Amino acid sequence: MSSIRVMVWNEGQHEKKHEAVQKVYPQGIHGAIAEGLQEAGYAVQTATLDQPEHGLSEAALEQTDVLIWWAHIAHDQVDDAIVERVHKRVLGGMGLIVLHSGHFSKIFKRIMGTSGNLKWREIGEKERLWVVNAAHPIADGLDDHFELQHEEMYGEPFGIPEPDSLVFVSWFAGGEVFRSGCCWYRDQGKVFYFRPGHETYPTYYDPNVRKVLANAVRWAAPTNGPKITVANRREPLETL
Amino acid sequence: MSSIRVMVWNEGQHEKKHEAVQKVYPQGIHGAIAEGLQEAGYAVQTATLDQPEHGLSEAALEQTDVLIWWAHIAHDQVDDAIVERVHKRVLGGMGLIVLHSGHFSKIFKRIMGTSGNLKWREIGEKERLWVVNAAHPIADGLDDHFELQHEEMYGEPFGIPEPDSLVFVSWFAGGEVFRSGCCWYRDQGKVFYFRPGHETYPTYYDPNVRKVLANAVRWAAPTNGPKITVANRREPLETL
Amino acid sequence: MSSIRVMVWNEGQHEKKHEAVQKVYPQGIHGAIAEGLQEAGYAVQTATLDQPEHGLSEAALEQTDVLIWWAHIAHDQVDDAIVERVHKRVLGGMGLIVLHSGHFSKIFKRIMGTSGNLKWREIGEKERLWVVNAAHPIADGLDDHFELQHEEMYGEPFGIPEPDSLVFVSWFAGGEVFRSGCCWYRDQGKVFYFRPGHETYPTYYDPNVRKVLANAVRWAAPTNGPKITVANRREPLETL
Amino acid sequence: MSSIRVMVWNEGQHEKKHEAVQKVYPQGIHGAIAEGLQEAGYAVQTATLDQPEHGLSEAALEQTDVLIWWAHIAHDQVDDAIVERVHKRVLGGMGLIVLHSGHFSKIFKRIMGTSGNLKWREIGEKERLWVVNAAHPIADGLDDHFELQHEEMYGEPFGIPEPDSLVFVSWFAGGEVFRSGCCWYRDQGKVFYFRPGHETYPTYYDPNVRKVLANAVRWAAPTNGPKITVANRREPLETL
Repeated sequence: MSSIRVMVWNEGQHEKKHEAVQKVYPQGIHGAIAEGLQEAGYAVQTATLDQPEHGLSEAALEQTDVLIWWAHIAHDQVDDAIVERVHKRVLGGMGLIVLHSGHFSKIFKRIMGTSGNLKWREIGEKERLWVVNAAHPIADGLDDHFELQHEEMYGEPFGIPEPDSLVFVSWFAGGEVFRSGCCWYRDQGKVFYFRPGHETYPTYYDPNVRKVLANAVRWAAPTNGPKITVANRREPLETL
Repeated sequence: MSSIRVMVWNEGQHEKKHEAVQKVYPQGIHGAIAEGLQEAGYAVQTATLDQPEHGLSEAALEQTDVLIWWAHIAHDQVDDAIVERVHKRVLGGMGLIVLHSGHFSKIFKRIMGTSGNLKWREIGEKERLWVVNAAHPIADGLDDHFELQHEEMYGEPFGIPEPDSLVFVSWFAGGEVFRSGCCWYRDQGKVFYFRPGHETYPTYYDPNVRKVLANAVRWAAPTNGPKITVANRREPLETL
Repeated sequence: MSSIRVMVWNEGQHEKKHEAVQKVYPQGIHGAIAEGLQEAGYAVQTATLDQPEHGLSEAALEQTDVLIWWAHIAHDQVDDAIVERVHKRVLGGMGLIVLHSGHFSKIFKRIMGTSGNLKWREIGEKERLWVVNAAHPIADGLDDHFELQHEEMYGEPFGIPEPDSLVFVSWFAGGEVFRSGCCWYRDQGKVFYFRPGHETYPTYYDPNVRKVLANAVRWAAPTNGPKITVANRREPLETL
Repeated sequence: MSSIRVMVWNEGQHEKKHEAVQKVYPQGIHGAIAEGLQEAGYAVQTATLDQPEHGLSEAALEQTDVLIWWAHIAHDQVDDAIVERVHKRVLGGMGLIVLHSGHFSKIFKRIMGTSGNLKWREIGEKERLWVVNAAHPIADGLDDHFELQHEEMYGEPFGIPEPDSLVFVSWFAGGEVFRSGCCWYRDQGKVFYFRPGHETYPTYYDPNVRKVLANAVRWAAPTNGPKITVANRREPLETL
């Protein structure tokens, strides 16, 4: 496990602009996520929007097994060429974990092919995440549910493909539910969407959230299966 | 649509024993369900546990396209031979819709192969059903959610196979969620589990619940696909 | 059923350039597909790449319940704005049926989010399509398999999301297999990919192929479920 | 990985009766399977039908993380109480890998809830297994396909629930296809069905087959998720 290399990407804009966010995440949202994954034994790097190539050069991705994506107010500022590059990497086997408001990121919409639409409400209500697939490795070490005292609400219907595995469903105090932990296989790669993580709440310090992310990295890490290539096999394998 | 033949099966025990249930369902739970489906244009019959062969003779099933199953306190009194018969019919193409506490019926556990375990609480709290697959025919004509003012609570994790399509997720006022509308293909047949319908609440008079059941009958009705047989094909189709 | 309105879209380039294709499809590939669907009772229109807006104006799509897409050598000539328009329509509920080499069309790659990669071989070998989901409505009226004497081969691994329902798997004489009938739900819409239909073979006159397409149109037709919108629900449904 | 404890169960009847089988599997089919898994670093035990409690006492299962099941001609001789015991264990988290003719075993039919029906032909034709989910951990280290020169044929439609992940599809020289590597989650447990392994062919010595089984053991091993219990939660989590 220790050999899995994680890149935590964060647009890093809220931290520059909003004191409330700085206070909760003095090292940035990416810093808090990275800290949790380092504790879990992974080799972790971080990158942000403002860096050259958003910190996601070919060389950087070459060293990345699993990419984590947090973004919210600057989706449009992400260079299309970088999105294309990440997309190709994921189809080629790099794991992708998209967090919270990343549901509207270019990369998530590109790889899902759907709208990513949802309902939301920002009053800091309680979220309770229920495990609905107790056998899934991402539920490893968890109780049947865990709570986040204050979170933004996301509500169904959520514009995503049916998950290949649905691991969590969230309950919100204000009356909604949400498929908050979703797994997909995409070509040679694996994608996990995890709902919690609004910038004004200390969600990424929560032990259960950190456990989920650590489990998700392990699940999403590349395996060495066959390549999905386009090829003209002129010769049949069998004599017709 | 009018040609689909529905059999509504109800163990019919609460109605004999509990005045509160009689008051809510003077024609029996099966009577209320049947009424709704008749209004939707189906040809509906009913049967109960106390009838010979529980009203589910081979002849009766031969005339049944979709079987609806409500049961709660008398699962053990259902004859194993009848369960076997129904199981075979479903695998052969007859639709099966299992309601509420039917999650612990012999037929549901037999065809699912899992425990059917869940949490429950009977304080008459509010249930809100959210559509999570807006494209599915069982969500036809519905808004994004509907409410039942008073219902028994069922909570996750629910011991079922991952649904082939998940249509509804329920929110409960007391803090739980539940996969409350689940579709499965099983051999030549289709199975739908629908959560609501506690015997002391007028759930089966609710217009949205009736719409769901009418949609589910149409979805579960037999199609004329190939049989899944066991056969020794001695001769290869191709020259090797 | 007769009220379902189908638009058969064909790039229509082979027919202009290759005499062999003209001979097999004198009315165009779209003509043969349309003929089969008209016989099945649908209201059918056709459109091709060379028309203004490729024949897919907002007005035309407004009158379309299910869009069928055949394309091969001119994917790049399809206007991105039209692809965007079709994509939005599908997410909004319009059915989409993508045929054969349409696996590399812009619309298919956009809505799948994957590569669409596959192997191929063009020697006119035999394809045999096996039903693997006997309960699915798209298998209605079919035997357990059917054959096409001459087809192009497509081989796995195929770069698609795991189908929400897999209906057909193809066997090829030369040694490959292929998931040749795949269903997906996408937001409010339904998508079906069907493999057969190389331009030099009379595939779209085949009675089984026509039955599959007629079934697929019925399955993919819009249902009237809830919209998947993005919305800020400022007020909680419940008192917190 | 080395800590995963595997129990290889084989009815062990062919080996007693048929010289041809003894010749191919002098240590029994279980012996060959066990050898491959030991080489992969697992702690492996074996058990057979003739042992007391078929070698599957509560104590033995308590020491088992993943159970492998090979059976063919003696399904009926397996004690129902043992089947019940294994079923409970799988639902509680023990991995189950069912091989070849185990599709008709009591435990497989019990946990699947379907017929297990299929077509077959025993002329020793060629089987070619294609990977259709290149991202799945069970495809780790494999090329896009591998071949078995001589195998029994199994053909679709196969009476199983839609797999939660479909990893392999087989091509047979005689003209059939088969979903030959299928994954399911069931309560807290994981189930993998793998098709190859007729008793008269040296399939379980094949390096690719051994790799698949080693991968499948790792995938199916228990994870420490929540229990799926039945519980009356009298007190709501929230104040209503």
